[in-house]
Amino acid sequence: MEAAAVLADRVRAGDVRAIARAMSIVDDESPAAAGLVAALHPHGGRARLVGITGSPGAGKSTLVDSLIGELRRRQRRVGVIAVDPTSPFSGGAVLGDRVRMQAHASDPGVFIRSLATRGQLGGLARSTGDVAAVLDAAGFDDILMETVGVGQDEVEIARAADVTVVVLVPGAGDDVQALKAGIMEIADVFVVNKADVPGAERTAASVRMLLGMSGADAQGWRPPIVLTDARSGRGVAELVDAVERFADAGQDIIAARRGARSGLRVRTLVTVLLMRELEDTLVPGELDRVVAAVSARRLDPYTAARLLAARIVASPDTRHGG
Amino acid sequence: MEAAAVLADRVRAGDVRAIARAMSIVDDESPAAAGLVAALHPHGGRARLVGITGSPGAGKSTLVDSLIGELRRRQRRVGVIAVDPTSPFSGGAVLGDRVRMQAHASDPGVFIRSLATRGQLGGLARSTGDVAAVLDAAGFDDILMETVGVGQDEVEIARAADVTVVVLVPGAGDDVQALKAGIMEIADVFVVNKADVPGAERTAASVRMLLGMSGADAQGWRPPIVLTDARSGRGVAELVDAVERFADAGQDIIAARRGARSGLRVRTLVTVLLMRELEDTLVPGELDRVVAAVSARRLDPYTAARLLAARIVASPDTRHGG
Repeated sequence: MEAAAVLADRVRAGDVRAIARAMSIVDDESPAAAGLVAALHPHGGRARLVGITGSPGAGKSTLVDSLIGELRRRQRRVGVIAVDPTSPFSGGAVLGDRVRMQAHASDPGVFIRSLATRGQLGGLARSTGDVAAVLDAAGFDDILMETVGVGQDEVEIARAADVTVVVLVPGAGDDVQALKAGIMEIADVFVVNKADVPGAERTAASVRMLLGMSGADAQGWRPPIVLTDARSGRGVAELVDAVERFADAGQDIIAARRGARSGLRVRTLVTVLLMRELEDTLVPGELDRVVAAVSARRLDPYTAARLLAARIVASPDTRHGG
Repeated sequence: MEAAAVLADRVRAGDVRAIARAMSIVDDESPAAAGLVAALHPHGGRARLVGITGSPGAGKSTLVDSLIGELRRRQRRVGVIAVDPTSPFSGGAVLGDRVRMQAHASDPGVFIRSLATRGQLGGLARSTGDVAAVLDAAGFDDILMETVGVGQDEVEIARAADVTVVVLVPGAGDDVQALKAGIMEIADVFVVNKADVPGAERTAASVRMLLGMSGADAQGWRPPIVLTDARSGRGVAELVDAVERFADAGQDIIAARRGARSGLRVRTLVTVLLMRELEDTLVPGELDRVVAAVSARRLDPYTAARLLAARIVASPDTRHGG
């Protein structure tokens, strides 16, 4: 705990190496993570978490790059979490795109972290949230969370954001796919990027039409559609303005999202702690033997789960009070 | 339990209405589900679970349609689970694609079930597995699990399969995206569909090259690449042959996958049971109050989780023996 408090102080002071180390620690749900999260938690909640998602090729990296510039002009400190889908075949190429952002590497008001999705089934949203929490405690004002694609991962990461920006490109057949995959529901602000390409207005119009059909303003907010050209920076200030308008008008929505996030985080940690308790309780190899019996159809999975759960659950009469 | 045993008997006899009802029951993890799974479990494990995935537009539905025909010619009973990503904007259209399959609706040797992904964060692979388990107990020989897209959901569903077929189309820029998203690692058999389109051989050659680089045959199996034209049925018999070859040569791999699946299922059910126990133990509103304290930064999430877990965990000295 002592060490956690010292590290937390260094994070809060904005020490770059301490921030990087804290990110690694919070990510592994170890006892060290518990102490560090406890030390950082009271100092969080001030940053604005901005999710930026959209199809591959929509120009999100360039847009994030422009956003950093615009936010820095507004005297805001900016953290960036770039979520990269990696595979043995592509890891290098995707990371290469990030090199551009390193133009900001010498600016102490900017901190960029890449997260790889590989092998993180279901854990990616959590990792993103933990890394964001460190940047939040370190006093960054805006935390941009960039994800590639429009799959379930991205929807989950959107739930880790206060504001979600969905980036489309004019005329790409992808647009309709993106909308199909449930992305309409997560957008607080739409961007049609590469607005110099013919068809940008038409794409904006189709989104406007779909929004009209969807009743997306049921909560009092109809997502605006901002045309940008990230390369020249055109429209980027308007995008920041739109995000700020949502942060202002959508305060109740944001509070509800943060509450849902806290709830999910607590529930997830409870299951982690309970499973760890179970693993500590079982004899080595015991779980494997139970699973083998299920595989061999000698035991059904529900009965197996009930037997295992009973190993750590107190009978009601021996429980501690609430 | 009595009712579960009766329903299980009707499922095993192939009663279509009983199968549909059992699918609904197993999906909700209720006490009724526990009894039914227990009754069905000893009779499962015989079906071959075939996952079929790939980009939207790759022609997977048509391919599944042809596969049903080929498998029926081989006297095999075929179950199909079509996983549909739905949104308010697309639900109808995607389901419309399935209508074609209904040509088999009057064939008692074919059972088709659609599963919607909407709102099923993380639970989709489980639902697919449960529905497959009912079809398995009902005596279907092959269970085709068709998913759209190449996201995390699809990777998870692939893990629910014994054999995974990845469907590509010639020359689509999508190919490279698909490979990037980690799909290379899950394919046991590749299909280049629409093989009449120019560039099919070139697409097959690029996959072959990537496979050569990847050492994909480390486990003694190098995924074959089958060219099909699902509309005419060309190549579909070869595809079934390739799947059968994998089922034969890859027996150890399949056994390992089934073991991993049993392990994941048991662990998931343990957490479900433990969380249910916790919810039953807490005073109504108590969890909400704890979460609100976390949101308000008066309590950190680890401490909250520890306090909650302690409400149901037995101290070591009051535990039942193992």
